[in-house]
Amino acid sequence: MDVCEAVRTGLAVRTFQDKPIPSEVVHKIIEAARLTGSSMNGQPWHFIVVQDRAQLRKLGALAKTGPYIAQALLAIVVVIDRTLYAVSDGSRAIQSMILTAWSEGIGSNWVGFVEMPEVNKILDIPAALDVLAVVPFGYPAKAVGKGKKKRKALSEVVYWEKFGESAK
Amino acid sequence: MDVCEAVRTGLAVRTFQDKPIPSEVVHKIIEAARLTGSSMNGQPWHFIVVQDRAQLRKLGALAKTGPYIAQALLAIVVVIDRTLYAVSDGSRAIQSMILTAWSEGIGSNWVGFVEMPEVNKILDIPAALDVLAVVPFGYPAKAVGKGKKKRKALSEVVYWEKFGESAK
Repeated sequence: MDVCEAVRTGLAVRTFQDKPIPSEVVHKIIEAARLTGSSMNGQPWHFIVVQDRAQLRKLGALAKTGPYIAQALLAIVVVIDRTLYAVSDGSRAIQSMILTAWSEGIGSNWVGFVEMPEVNKILDIPAALDVLAVVPFGYPAKAVGKGKKKRKALSEVVYWEKFGESAK
Repeated sequence: MDVCEAVRTGLAVRTFQDKPIPSEVVHKIIEAARLTGSSMNGQPWHFIVVQDRAQLRKLGALAKTGPYIAQALLAIVVVIDRTLYAVSDGSRAIQSMILTAWSEGIGSNWVGFVEMPEVNKILDIPAALDVLAVVPFGYPAKAVGKGKKKRKALSEVVYWEKFGESAK
């Protein structure tokens, strides 16, 4: 799928079919993360591919905003170093994964984790690293729309030459 | 261009041709930003499209790591609110823009700005908001490669089920 089309139509998906994602597609998604650009090419990231159902259920139980991780057949846990641009770099990698997955017909949603030592524990993540997000992936259980999105109007978020100035 | 292809081949570009980007392509790029997903759909972002050469030169002069902004014909300044996930959300929007631009043959590079009141001043940005990045865009001055990238090996950054575990 074309990049513009993926960005335009991509939607958060929270209910998934019980249909596994082929391993070559899983590889495409993690390659998208690995190949993403980062500040000074620092690549301050680690990606844990979770497909074990018991682990997915534990993550879902821990995630206040993402209990649906428990129903997914795949989640990628994004772990970052504590460096200046690591949040930005990790977020860019996640966006690459989300768009790549979407272009393969797979939905996902960013589940944020803020300081959850339990997550580090069940995944053996060193205490010196942070979990930026857990992103569950799956084939959408319901038909997804054609990109009708609730977004602020262009004039509310895009300015020309200076902050607050509308198009010439 | 296909999403995978854009992620795979996309490279940072720092020297640009003196060839303007058509306005419909500029619109595609800012639409990609506007339509990106964000935490709780908060959209904590603002995008300033800078095409004025004097302003671009000023930004280039201020950017220690990005003097080449002065040579670009377009830069998009990404401004974020001070909310919990704004850095992540803004970074996702930038990644959408970079991939969209690349799929149109346009290179770019993320230039980070950390607390630069001068930038707020020349662009009339309220002091309560932060500049996350200035991203210059342009047609690459030199031929760009076919996606040969220096990245850590998959085994260094991707684990299976638990941190540090290699593929089964």
